[in-house]
Amino acid sequence: MAEPEWESLEQCLEKHLPPTDLREVKRLLYGKETRKLDLPSQALECAAEGDFELQGYAFEAAEEQLRGPRTVRVGLVQNRIPLPAEAPVAKQPCPSRSAQERSSRGRSLPSQPRTGPPPDSARSHWQLRFHFLLPSLTAVDPAQKWSHTLAKKHNMVVVSPILERDGAHGDVLWNTAVVISNSGAVLGKTRKNHIPRVGDFNESTYYMEGNLGHPVFQTQFGRIAVNICYGRHHPLNWFMYSVNGADIIFNPSATIGALSESMWPIEARNAAIANHCFTCAINRVGKEHFPHEFTSGDGKKAHKDFGYFYGSSYVAAPDSSRTPGLSRTRDGLLVAELNLNLCRQVNDVWNFKMTGRYDMYARELAEAVQPDYRPHIVRE
Amino acid sequence: MAEPEWESLEQCLEKHLPPTDLREVKRLLYGKETRKLDLPSQALECAAEGDFELQGYAFEAAEEQLRGPRTVRVGLVQNRIPLPAEAPVAKQPCPSRSAQERSSRGRSLPSQPRTGPPPDSARSHWQLRFHFLLPSLTAVDPAQKWSHTLAKKHNMVVVSPILERDGAHGDVLWNTAVVISNSGAVLGKTRKNHIPRVGDFNESTYYMEGNLGHPVFQTQFGRIAVNICYGRHHPLNWFMYSVNGADIIFNPSATIGALSESMWPIEARNAAIANHCFTCAINRVGKEHFPHEFTSGDGKKAHKDFGYFYGSSYVAAPDSSRTPGLSRTRDGLLVAELNLNLCRQVNDVWNFKMTGRYDMYARELAEAVQPDYRPHIVRE
Repeated sequence: MAEPEWESLEQCLEKHLPPTDLREVKRLLYGKETRKLDLPSQALECAAEGDFELQGYAFEAAEEQLRGPRTVRVGLVQNRIPLPAEAPVAKQPCPSRSAQERSSRGRSLPSQPRTGPPPDSARSHWQLRFHFLLPSLTAVDPAQKWSHTLAKKHNMVVVSPILERDGAHGDVLWNTAVVISNSGAVLGKTRKNHIPRVGDFNESTYYMEGNLGHPVFQTQFGRIAVNICYGRHHPLNWFMYSVNGADIIFNPSATIGALSESMWPIEARNAAIANHCFTCAINRVGKEHFPHEFTSGDGKKAHKDFGYFYGSSYVAAPDSSRTPGLSRTRDGLLVAELNLNLCRQVNDVWNFKMTGRYDMYARELAEAVQPDYRPHIVRE
Repeated sequence: MAEPEWESLEQCLEKHLPPTDLREVKRLLYGKETRKLDLPSQALECAAEGDFELQGYAFEAAEEQLRGPRTVRVGLVQNRIPLPAEAPVAKQPCPSRSAQERSSRGRSLPSQPRTGPPPDSARSHWQLRFHFLLPSLTAVDPAQKWSHTLAKKHNMVVVSPILERDGAHGDVLWNTAVVISNSGAVLGKTRKNHIPRVGDFNESTYYMEGNLGHPVFQTQFGRIAVNICYGRHHPLNWFMYSVNGADIIFNPSATIGALSESMWPIEARNAAIANHCFTCAINRVGKEHFPHEFTSGDGKKAHKDFGYFYGSSYVAAPDSSRTPGLSRTRDGLLVAELNLNLCRQVNDVWNFKMTGRYDMYARELAEAVQPDYRPHIVRE
């Protein structure tokens, strides 16, 4: 496996490939080239000072007769947890606060200040996770409150993943993302539909599968949805958000190297292609350790090291183009300018929705979920 | 766009990257390394003599207590049409015959001797396509008959895409793949479910959407399915073949550069990951011209050049690893050794099927296909 120190695919290719080859390799890997944003020097200075990567790209669309461009900006924040995982939550700084506050430029941008669930994914570390729970959506912790202030101040929508304790339903715990409108009010929430039961990533002992379906949020800047973390492995999850009209689907994740790194560039990108929408894949970065040893009983020695969160956050577009990824090693902010008109333009050419035959699948799937379903197998 | 002459991503990376970086880049792009097969010198000589590329890779799986390895070989044939598109079909040589006959080694291998529909995809070229029609599955053309002989002789299963004329139903035309058992008998057929309505690739004027659902074929070597061409853009199509138990899903395609080249490495690979199965993505290669000018009315000048079929055939595995692609420029045969036990092994770790919540999707999809469906949109 690549060492965490190996910074990024893009950096390596740019270092070694001659310009002509680099252009062809990028086209094959990333599709049509995205325009680099001309970021203000003030923002770049902030990034240097705050020691985080700052990248910006634009996805363009053709002019239309009946609609003007619908250009919005998204900011994907990729962060490490600055203090050790066992530090009290009250002392954990809101990880991306400085990056966010200093580089945002007060323009209309849906944003995503936290990149995944709090650092509680190791089942051995029970005592930690309760620190991060919010009693309800109306009584918020300091970080959450800060998100509301930020949303209003900068006229942007904030997607803020939290752990939700559902007092009205026997204290069920949900992995939830709150969407905060640019008015500062809670626009709504969405819950993680698919809960990983994967080795150390077994979250089924402390989250329940979401029961809110596939809501899409009509913001002032476009229709957005949040496919939380492990839900990215499920094409049907992306699909239903798209059926409900999402222009942009955010995928706040916290995923480690050995587990998923070669899947990472594929899944959100496939979802953007298949559903004619933009997808934003955001991962945490850095190494995390826990105070207690844990093991999945998989033959490996008990260990405190949870693995390496490999960052590599990116934005993918419906025309199969994508931005380069943020690094595998550093905090970063990826700004992307999206002309949402591209979604319908690609839809009108490729017609996946029109040729999707969803009535057939509704029928077949309804049959397939029956306990006595007999798969359609042809034998000699 | 890359010139057709630009041979392949892999070749470029191998030429320019230092070994350590190359290893990391390959891991990020292709996942866990696949073992190169030690191909017999006789086969390599045949390839050199016949001027086609020959590559071989193996996907391995862990040993199991209750099952022996289930190792099968697949052969993906990537070919150009050797004569001009307008040559009479009787004169068109079965494109991959020599490659296939000479390099196959008489072992159990499901195979795929033809890589897509015959060269009839330009709507302007009506007169050609009828040459390729088979009156029925029992009366076969020489190429088809040859496939049966080949299947039996080499003890392999053959997936043979044809255009099917359905005399029992008013001469409806289907884009069909016939699965020929290693006994030489027709095991069954499957029809293309999703018909492209994409610019010059508008096939809706001469194919009807398939009506056979998602059959899976129980062969002696494993359960296989065929997701024909444009069906690869539809995650639900791959999914239903997997629900019906496919270990391997073949995707015989004929797709051109400007249209889909940056989607190509994503879609079949995502399907292998999401469905815990192997997928085989096979594309035609080379340039094709038609005798009559055509246009999609998209502002481009009428032209006879259909575009460049970019080859790049590959096999993807459920653990997100994949083989390198065949070249973008040459005929080729990609042999892959698959231990089918890997499918269940990955399933047992990642559990996408177990966490798939298909009952929820059956319900949501049944609602979504209603004409009066109101998308689930949350507003402020």
